[in-house]
Amino acid sequence: MKKEIPPGDNRLRKVCSNCATIHYHNPKVITGCLPVWEDKVLLCRRAIEPRKGFWNVPAGFMELGETTEEGAAREVWEEAEAKVDIWGVHTVFTFKRFANVYVQYLGELVDGKYGIGEESTEVKLFSESEIPWEEIAFESSTFALRKYFEDRKNGVRQAHSGHL
Amino acid sequence: MKKEIPPGDNRLRKVCSNCATIHYHNPKVITGCLPVWEDKVLLCRRAIEPRKGFWNVPAGFMELGETTEEGAAREVWEEAEAKVDIWGVHTVFTFKRFANVYVQYLGELVDGKYGIGEESTEVKLFSESEIPWEEIAFESSTFALRKYFEDRKNGVRQAHSGHL
Repeated sequence: MKKEIPPGDNRLRKVCSNCATIHYHNPKVITGCLPVWEDKVLLCRRAIEPRKGFWNVPAGFMELGETTEEGAAREVWEEAEAKVDIWGVHTVFTFKRFANVYVQYLGELVDGKYGIGEESTEVKLFSESEIPWEEIAFESSTFALRKYFEDRKNGVRQAHSGHL
Repeated sequence: MKKEIPPGDNRLRKVCSNCATIHYHNPKVITGCLPVWEDKVLLCRRAIEPRKGFWNVPAGFMELGETTEEGAAREVWEEAEAKVDIWGVHTVFTFKRFANVYVQYLGELVDGKYGIGEESTEVKLFSESEIPWEEIAFESSTFALRKYFEDRKNGVRQAHSGHL
């Protein structure tokens, strides 16, 4: 593997010394959904690193062959065994250092039911005053939660863009 | 390179036969911005494949080390030599077949000035009735344009999610 600027490009890329394949490294999409039920939101306590033991909005790496919405619903199912009716885009949050882009939707639990998915040790509905702000796994989730409660107070639904 | 399911995973991944590196293939982010000026929007005619000669909303692959917003502003500069003041998230659009996620912002030209960037052969402001609908490069741009004019008619600003 060597580093060079391919023809027509303007950035150093990793190029295989054997087969000349250009290995582009681009940001990855993490897709998720903040599920709402009555006046509460659903969070999962992480069973895995990073940030094991902290609470998070259901989310994970988007896979090939799915839309961001399908990926978000899949993650809610995998982490919280819940079905969600997606309302719309809630936040787009970039972690520059890790080159991750979180696309978070807002949605509603279909029937209020949920369980404990493989990657969670606990899943729970929280009202605003119950949110464990000091134990939220990632800044993207804190951002999504704060914006949700702000918007709800103001009676608006809108998308937000943030970064760290 | 061989294909196997890594421990703790549930999907086939490409794994290097020599060094055991797992090569995850994930969707890529294309970030862009629909620049508005007075009652018009700015489009670029593509100088490069794919869809060379067709009109497009300024957009391109997000790079490491930038936020989606910074990438969107960079693309507007590279393709249209224009500075843009970003208002907010406008559309998230997944091309399932190509595993691309378009994150498109809406924004306003800072001073109404623009030029012709390296990847464009022509750059132009269009009113709604002037949009060359049959010559729009990608469905993601058609979606973003239609939603923009709909929202403007209805006096709302909101984010939309779509896919193909």
